[in-house]
Amino acid sequence: MIRTSRRLADGREILYFDDDRSPRAHDAQDTRDLPPVSTHSQLRYDALLGEWVAIASHRQSRTFLPPPDECPLDPSRPGRPTEIPDSSYQVVVFENRFPSLATEVEREVPPTAPGAPLARLRPGFGRCEVVCFTDQHDRVFAELGHDRARLVVDVWADRTAELSAIDGVEYVFPFENHGEEIGVTLSHPHGQIYAYPYVPPRAASVLRTVRRHRETSGGDLFAEVVGSERSGPRVVCANGHWTAFVPAAARWPYEVQLFPHRRVPDIPALTGEERDAFVRVYLDVLGRFARRFDTPMPYIASWNQAPVNDGREDWWLHLQLFSIRRAPGKLKYLAGSESGMGAFITDTNPEDVAEQLRAVVVA
Amino acid sequence: MIRTSRRLADGREILYFDDDRSPRAHDAQDTRDLPPVSTHSQLRYDALLGEWVAIASHRQSRTFLPPPDECPLDPSRPGRPTEIPDSSYQVVVFENRFPSLATEVEREVPPTAPGAPLARLRPGFGRCEVVCFTDQHDRVFAELGHDRARLVVDVWADRTAELSAIDGVEYVFPFENHGEEIGVTLSHPHGQIYAYPYVPPRAASVLRTVRRHRETSGGDLFAEVVGSERSGPRVVCANGHWTAFVPAAARWPYEVQLFPHRRVPDIPALTGEERDAFVRVYLDVLGRFARRFDTPMPYIASWNQAPVNDGREDWWLHLQLFSIRRAPGKLKYLAGSESGMGAFITDTNPEDVAEQLRAVVVA
Repeated sequence: MIRTSRRLADGREILYFDDDRSPRAHDAQDTRDLPPVSTHSQLRYDALLGEWVAIASHRQSRTFLPPPDECPLDPSRPGRPTEIPDSSYQVVVFENRFPSLATEVEREVPPTAPGAPLARLRPGFGRCEVVCFTDQHDRVFAELGHDRARLVVDVWADRTAELSAIDGVEYVFPFENHGEEIGVTLSHPHGQIYAYPYVPPRAASVLRTVRRHRETSGGDLFAEVVGSERSGPRVVCANGHWTAFVPAAARWPYEVQLFPHRRVPDIPALTGEERDAFVRVYLDVLGRFARRFDTPMPYIASWNQAPVNDGREDWWLHLQLFSIRRAPGKLKYLAGSESGMGAFITDTNPEDVAEQLRAVVVA
Repeated sequence: MIRTSRRLADGREILYFDDDRSPRAHDAQDTRDLPPVSTHSQLRYDALLGEWVAIASHRQSRTFLPPPDECPLDPSRPGRPTEIPDSSYQVVVFENRFPSLATEVEREVPPTAPGAPLARLRPGFGRCEVVCFTDQHDRVFAELGHDRARLVVDVWADRTAELSAIDGVEYVFPFENHGEEIGVTLSHPHGQIYAYPYVPPRAASVLRTVRRHRETSGGDLFAEVVGSERSGPRVVCANGHWTAFVPAAARWPYEVQLFPHRRVPDIPALTGEERDAFVRVYLDVLGRFARRFDTPMPYIASWNQAPVNDGREDWWLHLQLFSIRRAPGKLKYLAGSESGMGAFITDTNPEDVAEQLRAVVVA
């Protein structure tokens, strides 16, 4: 993998990643006249729930469903400059122009929200990156092919290692939102990486549960879950290094978790062989998601890595892939029970979902 | 309030509630030929997150956006029987025909999910009720008027007391999902009440936080929050018994919490005067939600009551009202950060939202 660092017109960093066989200079300049990025995010502590919430009010004016010929993630053409100055690319990473969290953020914030002594404030420090998987606007991840998908895995590893090294970053989260149904505002194939200055609630909960399980039973929760699911009735597909299964208590209509067979804390810890094996299983599962119904399912792909500074020896890297489509033309909405009380109710049976996904004929 | 209990054709209970001035027999029979309700819900324990998930796969075939002339919540007319046999009603409560949780549920379930020793199973025991606020199809709660809204509060109190008394029910949750944007499948003005056999995650988290706050600081978290917000810059409206404010760390684009000034665990504990005062504040806030933008905002109204058997003396009843609309024509979608990691990022500033809601001219 060859990595080339450049700067956009407003000073944001852009990184071009190419496979070793295709070196390219990527020295095209960003010709746009961009205003400097201004980020006023702050974190506020929700004292009743004991969780941080990011307030990023400058994001209200962000790009919203542009027409295809104005896609900011396409490569630049003469007279049509985009976020990527070069005229072609393989994988590109750049800082989000409307970031929720940024390293260049106003560091001076009052200690608490106005009139709320318990609502502590912190600067919205962190980093939000965009990862473009290909310069071809109409592709999807499921169709990237092995080599490009493997390059993306190496990019996730690069970004995880680099973002983890930033002082103050506590969690690195690569993810992909896919499909207009879940609010994706740019259809060009891309994912994102958030570097949070705190351990987000899901990871914090899992870590708490893992520790409680060890204290009460002496057991290793991740190892027990992976061990039983690998040979259980909810396996969708697997190879020598990875297994994809529907979790026993899936909370989304279609949900698959991909676990490596060897315990590793994060993506950088995967060997080359394990990365190749991941790509084979992941492209297989994405193909099943795309073909389960007449139209491809919207999905969220969510990497669960170990926190940067806590519980790394307890963690077990996995990818959670889930869709809100519950039937053709029908979506699962998070309403009162889920959004109000956090109590998930699902209409699909995990063993049935696994069987349906296994039965999909993969091209 | 006059309460009349009847049975629907399939044996489900229906309760008519009328104000004292309008007694009515409600002895119309349900003439439909309904199959018996069959509920195969089960709860599964998500061992990694330490939370229960309800699996209700029989719900896939539930009624979905029927045309207005087939609304099952309208009163019955000759030749057009609905869920409510009588030809008119004030407030009606009945058991959901497609319940996620039910008292009449298969009680014999295996101890764990197939091949998953850690995924404990329990029957999907509980109760799911529908609350129709009026027999007028095109009304909304904001337009019910004081007397009808007060009757609804008394109905919530009745249902909370009765459902709390069912052995095995640990939490009673009245809520309203409002607006097609959040997946409401029936537009007739109605809410729901879920009686869970466990304390749902949000209430469990708040209770944990309240206790930790007391242990670490000796303080009373609810009292401190209510005390500071009552006189803070985020108050939307208030009267002698209730204050509605935007929480300091609001996680939804538009979020208002309504707290009574006196500490009570749940709706039944409110005095008549407090119930009247709630109605005045709530209708005021709902009117502001309806008029903030050109079209009424979709919303979720979510009653946070004390658990039935735990932490009642620690709790402080409140209503959480929130919308996913962030701007005209734009919705906040829960994507990777929120749905994947539980990390909320919001584009609106709580102090600004309070000011915008205060500035709405209420008719």
